[in-house]
Amino acid sequence: MRELDMKSANADKGMHKHFMSKEIAEQPAVLGDAVKHYINTERNAVVLPDVDLDFSKISQITMVACGTAYLACNVAKYWFEQIAGIPVDLDVASEFRYREPPLRDNTLAVFVSQSGETADTLAALRYCNDNHAQTIGVVNVPESSIARESNASLQIHAGVEIGVASTKAFTCQLTVLMTMVIKAARQRGKLDADGEAALVSALLGLPSIINVALQAEHEIIDVANALSKFSDTLFLGRGALFPIALEGALKLKEISYIHAEGYASGELKHGPIALVDENMPIVVFAPKDALFDKTVSNMQEVMARRGKVILFTDDAGAQVASDGAWKVIKMPAVHAPLAPILYAIPAQLLAYHTAVAKGTDVDQPRNLAKSVTVE
Amino acid sequence: MRELDMKSANADKGMHKHFMSKEIAEQPAVLGDAVKHYINTERNAVVLPDVDLDFSKISQITMVACGTAYLACNVAKYWFEQIAGIPVDLDVASEFRYREPPLRDNTLAVFVSQSGETADTLAALRYCNDNHAQTIGVVNVPESSIARESNASLQIHAGVEIGVASTKAFTCQLTVLMTMVIKAARQRGKLDADGEAALVSALLGLPSIINVALQAEHEIIDVANALSKFSDTLFLGRGALFPIALEGALKLKEISYIHAEGYASGELKHGPIALVDENMPIVVFAPKDALFDKTVSNMQEVMARRGKVILFTDDAGAQVASDGAWKVIKMPAVHAPLAPILYAIPAQLLAYHTAVAKGTDVDQPRNLAKSVTVE
Repeated sequence: MRELDMKSANADKGMHKHFMSKEIAEQPAVLGDAVKHYINTERNAVVLPDVDLDFSKISQITMVACGTAYLACNVAKYWFEQIAGIPVDLDVASEFRYREPPLRDNTLAVFVSQSGETADTLAALRYCNDNHAQTIGVVNVPESSIARESNASLQIHAGVEIGVASTKAFTCQLTVLMTMVIKAARQRGKLDADGEAALVSALLGLPSIINVALQAEHEIIDVANALSKFSDTLFLGRGALFPIALEGALKLKEISYIHAEGYASGELKHGPIALVDENMPIVVFAPKDALFDKTVSNMQEVMARRGKVILFTDDAGAQVASDGAWKVIKMPAVHAPLAPILYAIPAQLLAYHTAVAKGTDVDQPRNLAKSVTVE
Repeated sequence: MRELDMKSANADKGMHKHFMSKEIAEQPAVLGDAVKHYINTERNAVVLPDVDLDFSKISQITMVACGTAYLACNVAKYWFEQIAGIPVDLDVASEFRYREPPLRDNTLAVFVSQSGETADTLAALRYCNDNHAQTIGVVNVPESSIARESNASLQIHAGVEIGVASTKAFTCQLTVLMTMVIKAARQRGKLDADGEAALVSALLGLPSIINVALQAEHEIIDVANALSKFSDTLFLGRGALFPIALEGALKLKEISYIHAEGYASGELKHGPIALVDENMPIVVFAPKDALFDKTVSNMQEVMARRGKVILFTDDAGAQVASDGAWKVIKMPAVHAPLAPILYAIPAQLLAYHTAVAKGTDVDQPRNLAKSVTVE
């Protein structure tokens, strides 16, 4: 009943041609809503009311998911390790459940699924429950199996997502995972109250920054029209932007049927650069951060082989790295740890408009189901 | 001087058109040689003379490498976890070195590099040395920087490898890593003397099984000729065959410039299956093991979408899963844990003959260097 009510309340595309477009545009609103559930705005501090867990007693985190939710976990691995100092093991659920890995003592196992019903992820959760890990589900549907069977669950508050290619659920997953990271870093003494307040204000400011990013849509349409003429592309990123490269590639695959593949920028020269010629556009996500110069060097290798670089960067990055790039799209500056959430937006817009240019069925791409409840 | 001597002694293609072909054919001999360095054939037991390490005191292993060597580590992750019960963290060196992950106590860090000079891998080794991990280098060149700077090193004894696309170094890396796994499992009480003897005899029998696999070359040439007409392909595998799917895709990319991408079979339906139609051949590595039925179900999803399946399996697998497949190539039966080493052989032959059919420069593919000694 509840699901039906939610659907009827939301199953309206409004001014949008597709649900995916509507759901991309909703992100400032739903992210703002999601973050408020987990923040005390008076103290600019994280509150996770349903999670009775002392992160200082956790020695490692195992994260398991499928598809786009797996890539949210991949971003969170960087965050948990760098901000909270907790080692993270990460795996796709279909591999995790059958390799039945040894679990260390004091393991927290985190399972991310929009529907909360993903079959392989649910099986992985049951394996961890049986092996006495503490388990947390991060889901969009609070009555779902993964929410019910986890020791605790966090709802991502994305609202109903109808487009098969996940957009707002992905950024809400990231947002909620970041609140967990902040909580963990505080409890482990890796972040003081000021550090927490800085990250929390940055999270609260994210909706307005995403609004700015969404204004790049017209420029992205031009790039998408050009990209739609190609059959293959590579996506590159470093650090926590590497999973965003994977997500950009996955999104483009899912709805435009272009064979897009993501790589860690530094792995390019260990094989995949052999693919690069004038028919292989390379999409790069690179704000001007500590790893920027390394990425620019990888871009130059690509351009020396006539690869067409589509660079998503900020003002500072565009100033020093636009030479020779095929297209440059500028994103607003953002507090560095939140860059993966921000750069997910142009990745979604690029996939969406490329698919529209190709005339595919964006909301119901061929061969795909919204949630995979069978193995 | 020594390097020059080795080159002059080996830089002869013999009857082969390319070094890569010669190096593929050498594998039964070099694997037999590699394994003998680490085995006491009287007791059918592993001996690692230069590694003074008690694996029962190791609480986790970190494995770091680039390109094909990274995929050898990915196979070894499955082995260390399943056979020796040690959790393994795995990362590409260019990401590992910059994310500077927290290292747990009692960490063993393993670095795999054919040349022993891979710049990112060397930087990762130095990070682990600085952070008081025990370090082991697995290299082909015993005088290399990675061998010298590790606490201990194991030589893979592959002989000089001249083809840029690594073949015999990969299978020798796997073989030497398996001897480490056996040693670790014995010291941790996960394997008894009989279990060790069974694995060691299987390793000793591998050269003759690989000789049988090499006899599939003519059938593989037919498949390669057909595959060379396509611009894109996916490679699938489950469990320890998943990294072999990644390696098959990487090899094909490197020398044929076909855009090949590897996936864990179970992830296919979480996005990439949208790419599948009659223009997308799907290469599947699947001996009839415990995960075989799951993989067959993934193959059937592909075939229902007119995807062309090229199945590498054994007799037992071919009997039950050939219906509807585009091509089926049979491999000899092999002791299950060693399947990744065996299935690397047809992956190499498929890439090689596809490149030959396309007329690319197999031994010196465009844009690639043999060892990447810069970042």
